[in-house]
Amino acid sequence: MTTTRNRGPKSNRKRAPGGRKNRTIWHFGPGHADGETSMKDLLGGKGANLAEMCRIGLPVPGGFTIATSVCSRFAKSGHALPADVVADVRKAIRRLEKETGKGFGDPKRPLLVSVRSGAALSMPGMMDTVLNLGLNDDAMEGLAAQTGNRRFALDARRRFIQMFANVVEGLDLSRFERVLEQAQENAGVETDSELDAAALEDVVARYLKLFKRLAGRPFPDDPEEQLLRSICAVFGSWQGARAVEYRRIHKIEGLLGTAVNVQTMVFGNLGPTSGTGVCFTRDPSTGENVFYGEYLMNAQGEDVVAGIRTPQDLAGLVEVQPKAYRQLERVRRLLEKHYRDMQDIEFTIEDGTLYILQTRTGKRTARSAVRTAVEMAKQRLITRDEAVARVQPEDLDRLLHPQFDPQAERNVIARGLPASPGAVCGQVVFTADEAKVKAASGDPVILVRNETSPEDVGGMHAAEGILTATGGMTSHAAVVARGMGKCCVAGAGEVRIDESDGFFRVGDTVVWKDDVISLDGTSGEVMVGSVTTMPADPGPEFATLLSWADTACRKGGRGLRVRANADAPSDAATARAFGAVGIGLCRTEHMFFGEKRIIAMREMILADTLGARRKALRKLLPFQRRDFAGILKAMDGLPVTIRLLDPPLHEFLPHEEDGIAAVADALDVDEQEIRERSRRLEEMNPMLGHRGCRLGITYPEIYEMQVRAIYEAAAQNKKKGLRPRPEVMIPLVGSVKEYTLLRDRLKRVARDVLKKKEVTLPVIFGTMIEIPRAALRAAEIGAEAEFFSFGTNDLTQLTFGYSRDDVGSFLPGYVEQKVLDADPFATLDQSGVGELVQMAAERGRSARPKLKVGICGEHGGDPASIGFCHEVGLDYVSCSPFRVPIARLAAAHAVLGSVERDV
Amino acid sequence: MTTTRNRGPKSNRKRAPGGRKNRTIWHFGPGHADGETSMKDLLGGKGANLAEMCRIGLPVPGGFTIATSVCSRFAKSGHALPADVVADVRKAIRRLEKETGKGFGDPKRPLLVSVRSGAALSMPGMMDTVLNLGLNDDAMEGLAAQTGNRRFALDARRRFIQMFANVVEGLDLSRFERVLEQAQENAGVETDSELDAAALEDVVARYLKLFKRLAGRPFPDDPEEQLLRSICAVFGSWQGARAVEYRRIHKIEGLLGTAVNVQTMVFGNLGPTSGTGVCFTRDPSTGENVFYGEYLMNAQGEDVVAGIRTPQDLAGLVEVQPKAYRQLERVRRLLEKHYRDMQDIEFTIEDGTLYILQTRTGKRTARSAVRTAVEMAKQRLITRDEAVARVQPEDLDRLLHPQFDPQAERNVIARGLPASPGAVCGQVVFTADEAKVKAASGDPVILVRNETSPEDVGGMHAAEGILTATGGMTSHAAVVARGMGKCCVAGAGEVRIDESDGFFRVGDTVVWKDDVISLDGTSGEVMVGSVTTMPADPGPEFATLLSWADTACRKGGRGLRVRANADAPSDAATARAFGAVGIGLCRTEHMFFGEKRIIAMREMILADTLGARRKALRKLLPFQRRDFAGILKAMDGLPVTIRLLDPPLHEFLPHEEDGIAAVADALDVDEQEIRERSRRLEEMNPMLGHRGCRLGITYPEIYEMQVRAIYEAAAQNKKKGLRPRPEVMIPLVGSVKEYTLLRDRLKRVARDVLKKKEVTLPVIFGTMIEIPRAALRAAEIGAEAEFFSFGTNDLTQLTFGYSRDDVGSFLPGYVEQKVLDADPFATLDQSGVGELVQMAAERGRSARPKLKVGICGEHGGDPASIGFCHEVGLDYVSCSPFRVPIARLAAAHAVLGSVERDV
Repeated sequence: MTTTRNRGPKSNRKRAPGGRKNRTIWHFGPGHADGETSMKDLLGGKGANLAEMCRIGLPVPGGFTIATSVCSRFAKSGHALPADVVADVRKAIRRLEKETGKGFGDPKRPLLVSVRSGAALSMPGMMDTVLNLGLNDDAMEGLAAQTGNRRFALDARRRFIQMFANVVEGLDLSRFERVLEQAQENAGVETDSELDAAALEDVVARYLKLFKRLAGRPFPDDPEEQLLRSICAVFGSWQGARAVEYRRIHKIEGLLGTAVNVQTMVFGNLGPTSGTGVCFTRDPSTGENVFYGEYLMNAQGEDVVAGIRTPQDLAGLVEVQPKAYRQLERVRRLLEKHYRDMQDIEFTIEDGTLYILQTRTGKRTARSAVRTAVEMAKQRLITRDEAVARVQPEDLDRLLHPQFDPQAERNVIARGLPASPGAVCGQVVFTADEAKVKAASGDPVILVRNETSPEDVGGMHAAEGILTATGGMTSHAAVVARGMGKCCVAGAGEVRIDESDGFFRVGDTVVWKDDVISLDGTSGEVMVGSVTTMPADPGPEFATLLSWADTACRKGGRGLRVRANADAPSDAATARAFGAVGIGLCRTEHMFFGEKRIIAMREMILADTLGARRKALRKLLPFQRRDFAGILKAMDGLPVTIRLLDPPLHEFLPHEEDGIAAVADALDVDEQEIRERSRRLEEMNPMLGHRGCRLGITYPEIYEMQVRAIYEAAAQNKKKGLRPRPEVMIPLVGSVKEYTLLRDRLKRVARDVLKKKEVTLPVIFGTMIEIPRAALRAAEIGAEAEFFSFGTNDLTQLTFGYSRDDVGSFLPGYVEQKVLDADPFATLDQSGVGELVQMAAERGRSARPKLKVGICGEHGGDPASIGFCHEVGLDYVSCSPFRVPIARLAAAHAVLGSVERDV
Repeated sequence: MTTTRNRGPKSNRKRAPGGRKNRTIWHFGPGHADGETSMKDLLGGKGANLAEMCRIGLPVPGGFTIATSVCSRFAKSGHALPADVVADVRKAIRRLEKETGKGFGDPKRPLLVSVRSGAALSMPGMMDTVLNLGLNDDAMEGLAAQTGNRRFALDARRRFIQMFANVVEGLDLSRFERVLEQAQENAGVETDSELDAAALEDVVARYLKLFKRLAGRPFPDDPEEQLLRSICAVFGSWQGARAVEYRRIHKIEGLLGTAVNVQTMVFGNLGPTSGTGVCFTRDPSTGENVFYGEYLMNAQGEDVVAGIRTPQDLAGLVEVQPKAYRQLERVRRLLEKHYRDMQDIEFTIEDGTLYILQTRTGKRTARSAVRTAVEMAKQRLITRDEAVARVQPEDLDRLLHPQFDPQAERNVIARGLPASPGAVCGQVVFTADEAKVKAASGDPVILVRNETSPEDVGGMHAAEGILTATGGMTSHAAVVARGMGKCCVAGAGEVRIDESDGFFRVGDTVVWKDDVISLDGTSGEVMVGSVTTMPADPGPEFATLLSWADTACRKGGRGLRVRANADAPSDAATARAFGAVGIGLCRTEHMFFGEKRIIAMREMILADTLGARRKALRKLLPFQRRDFAGILKAMDGLPVTIRLLDPPLHEFLPHEEDGIAAVADALDVDEQEIRERSRRLEEMNPMLGHRGCRLGITYPEIYEMQVRAIYEAAAQNKKKGLRPRPEVMIPLVGSVKEYTLLRDRLKRVARDVLKKKEVTLPVIFGTMIEIPRAALRAAEIGAEAEFFSFGTNDLTQLTFGYSRDDVGSFLPGYVEQKVLDADPFATLDQSGVGELVQMAAERGRSARPKLKVGICGEHGGDPASIGFCHEVGLDYVSCSPFRVPIARLAAAHAVLGSVERDV
């Protein structure tokens, strides 16, 4: 034995245990196995797993695996089992009888087995499972005696005959079912579970007759014959049309064939010392490190599922079956140590003996996933990197927003896009003003609109949630709601709003103003009435996991940083609390919608002369300065990228009569004149219109005011001893001259302010890359700009030629018909838009190697897209504050994934 | 001499004539010269040209050039003329005196010269010209005697003093002008030409005094001193601040310096045997091969220009000065043979002797350019390729459309974009219906609208011309008008239309319905009243030139073919007559605007069910089939690329009340219902909305009807013995699956039709490349499509993110501020959009080497863009019928240009 030990355990494992490379039969049983987990090619996936479970000491019901190599021999010998294999199978059965103390066809302790197929890859189309094989008349009597339940034994025999007839012999299942239905009719009952033993006795007799008629030969009574024919059926199914077709479609080649697994059946209903149960090594709901599960004594697995009897809490088992329970406790430790993850276990106790039927990685809630991962790492079961990799970024979303109680009843009337997560209830209102008034009086409200515009932002803030009838995942409502961390269901196309009469309709359902509805921002469901919610509670392990994620991210040398998109001090503070290391996109348009601001803004837009525009801009300056000072303070010491005004001016104009009257009044002109000027500003395709830097070039005074406000705010903060780090971003650049023209003019303004205030600050300017042409000309632009920020929303719109406001009419159909793999506004289109992103990053850096490159579109918060951002070497992603944790985790995954690939 | 001859004339010319490489003085005179045209480096451009004119035997007034090499010697010797140069100049003057029989300061036959600078490159900032040098008191008396005009001689002396003072001495010109003004005041006259001899005598005296006061020394009386100081001034100006700055900006390096040209003055006003004139070797207006020009006897060049005396037709000169005339005839032949192009000649006859003062390539009309080029090629003066290269493609545009009489008065009230050429007058109407009614009664009308839509196409057809207040060079109005060859002025922003009250206003000018206005589609001018027009007449040489262009184009091996964009049989016929070799883009949307069609179309769009849509489509099928049959017939034997329906459906919906009523009636539903359904189809950004293949995928029945119509039409034509060659183009593809999904479905429809009709025809499908993503994914798409057609209008919109309907608000400012070099909708943006075009062509061909690739955007008719299309290896361009000749010529230029570059 010394020699073997010197070779080390690893080389020992590689050697086929048992020595014979071309052996056909591989035994396994409680605590021993010939094979092991790495031998999938020879034993199939199922066989290898069974062997592994045995090898680590689990009490698995014994059995054997017939190797995949036999499958090809079977095919070559004209679909006949070679004589040596038959002999080996017989020997294996004898051994199994000896080990279990049971006998094939034994009327006292009958050996019953299951027969299952199992190739190296899971593969539909092959013969599946025969249970209770061996259950001939004698064995049936034995089972009846053991269980003290003749009806159960008869039912098991009936099921075995039917399964064998259908699965092994390929007889028509419906013919057998008709016999059963006839029996039910005769007995005057509705279900087969109501048939008594006598009736089942009759069914068994009829089944045997029917089998003989259909198969042309009697049902085999000899368990060995049953077994050999089942084995042949499994091997034969490997060459069946469905299995061959499946392998063709999935391009599966080079497999030897399927293996066959023969395993002893065990029963939890053999009396009061038998039982069955399901358990988890930790609480799958909370992640708490407790043994969690349920059991039923003298019962089968189906009984637990059927819900006729109420299962007991696992803790009770220690009283009833202390030995089995202690054994189970050992199994729990063994499993976590071996599989290094929380396991979901099925077990049966047969006459006081514990058997583990199955173990697999346990499904768990997001909360549990985080806690399990963190605690396992603290127990040193896994590394911290593994803990980080174990939690899916998207799962975090649910932890940060309230959810509906999964048990609560939902009266769903419509479905929209799950635009921003959360679970909210409130009274329906149809305008932003109503929302503000009602919310101020303390009533939770839900703002329902066809679509929202910047005018509605105040009302959105006041509302609990937002429901829109049109618009997609990046519509105004969706983007703003995500930014606020507010629940939103967007583009619920069936919702028809009649604002003037104060109701909306979905089909025949009418919902009036002030009626209560509920929105599920994770599923997109709209419900009437209120639904019980559960508060958000990410748990204390959440922060630990994210700090590990950040550490993992840094390891890659150039891991992505995560910034946030925020345009209010409160949002900036939230983002910072969630771990954002700066603001990647501070939009400035919403800042103009306050009560006094909007009037001044409209004055500016509708002014006829430069002088009048300047006058209005002077009114706006103090507001802007205050906004910027607040945001810079909330993100003090971290970079804040401020985008100059982007939307077309007409978005700020009033559409309602009193808005028009107010502006007419403020500007002291005729209302008709205001309408006329508004009309002239209208555009056919505002998305492609007079916006972004195009406005900046036509009306330089607007950007000048903004830059003045930014640097006055920064100077003010610096004088207070803070460390403001503003960066100015010029939007919608498509040509380098747009950028240089504005940059030159605006840097002058910034430096003038700093000089006047006697403050020193670096003046950093960069641009959005959101126009395809900017990506193409990125070398030129990169030579001039200090940073690039990909506006992938607009870049996606332009690269595809899709308007995100209008895609609702065809994009869902596109995804359904697989024209597109995914909504490109939700997940970055790597092969199209992605090529432009990569090209622009490369070309930009070719001109300026230290160019800082980030992404601030909605994709910045999408885990799949974040992986891509890492691959193409971006410096940071920026996303809504509430998605910052998700992005941090996704960034870590990207680094861990690429490190893994690099190895 | 035999030896010299054996060396051949060419090697002889290369040798510096005169032998001495570093000689300073290079003489020239009637019929002889030391230098020649290739010696620009040494003699400057002007000196080399003067030498060349002399060498080919032209009677050029004699003189000499001081070589550029002297310039650097001048600088090195501290801005002094080296002694040997002074001596050489003196010798040269002696020789000139001998040759001319005149003398410096000679009171009988004074020798007067001009002194001019002249470097190898023309260069502002250097000293320009001194005339009449040598005109001291004595010489003045001589000139007075010769001309018999003392006043003239005094005036010439006054001018010489003033010029010398300013140009050579750098004295303040205004001081001299004040003297002249004083003299005018004293004499009580308004202009200096009214001053009599006595007054001028006084002015000369005052000038000499002023000169002395300002310069600190008397005016030099010695002609040699005048000359030497002038020469120094020329050389000195080479190092002047302005000249140095100019060379710096234009990166001009490596030049030796400037040369100085000294040339005898000749006078056409020495008496009845003297005269002056201007002539062209051919008629610059018609191109006719006749000697064309004007002269005046006993006059100076200024007299011809001033228009005080009426010049005589050149033909009359044969009577007055037969010898000079015959000599001039010889000069004409000599010049065309030598310069191989039509020349514009200035001549003077001094006392019976002809002098040629200048010859240059003559400016000509488009008509003349074509005729001259063709006839010169036929005379073998130039090759056919040269003839093709001589005519600018854009010039042809003027030949194909009527133009306003350049003499006619124009009352311009507004300016728009020159969207489609032509010159038209007509009565103002504001709706398409009015246009049709009025035009039907025989009145020419001009349709004035804010913008046009497909609904207006009938009215546009009926109108003489179209004026729009908004929209750019590729707006609907512009594109459709160019397609029809109809005059259009687009985007005349000052025009404010009040349709309901029936007038439009430009500033204070009001133009009522039925008032007559005129449009100039070449300049973009809008005029009130009618302006005399001249009909279009390209002349018989036009077709010859274009056939040579086609031949030149074929020589390159892979020259561009020219197809047309046409969607009506009549347009197709026009295009074919203009030489189109197929249709590159047959739009199908205008076909749905006929009276009965539009109702059926609207029925289809507003139908609620597939069945109802199919019913409406069945009504449309016969119309489509008839359209396609007609177009295929007009282009029989040539490929016709038909684009399936492209615009969003709402473009077809009625906006006016009676339109809505008609649809409601046809569909038998409520008008309110129609309004509601229309509203639902509205889009925020229709350009990026539910259109093109996106419609095809959502409503496959529409494209199925179109494809059925195409192949039924083709089958019908084929059965009549014709050779229809339809190609089906799927628009707006951005992802290969869009294409394959539709192609598979529609090819099936096409093959079904052909099988049913028992006709064999190839079924060819391809796609537009107009979405940036399609260009990026062109390898995938090229593997599936049989042709690509670049829709560069949409590709430009998306690559820049510009809406062509809205760019009016900023694009003109962009071009003005040089943010962009040109309107990218007029001239293809080679560095941005062009990269995508090139990338797509390359990637597409990498997947399918025989992929046919063309361009069908508006750029297909723009010469600069056509050059690019050739460079990137496209197979064809497609443009409006009326631009086909321009494109053919531009395609030939591209080939000739690249062949030249390849050599």
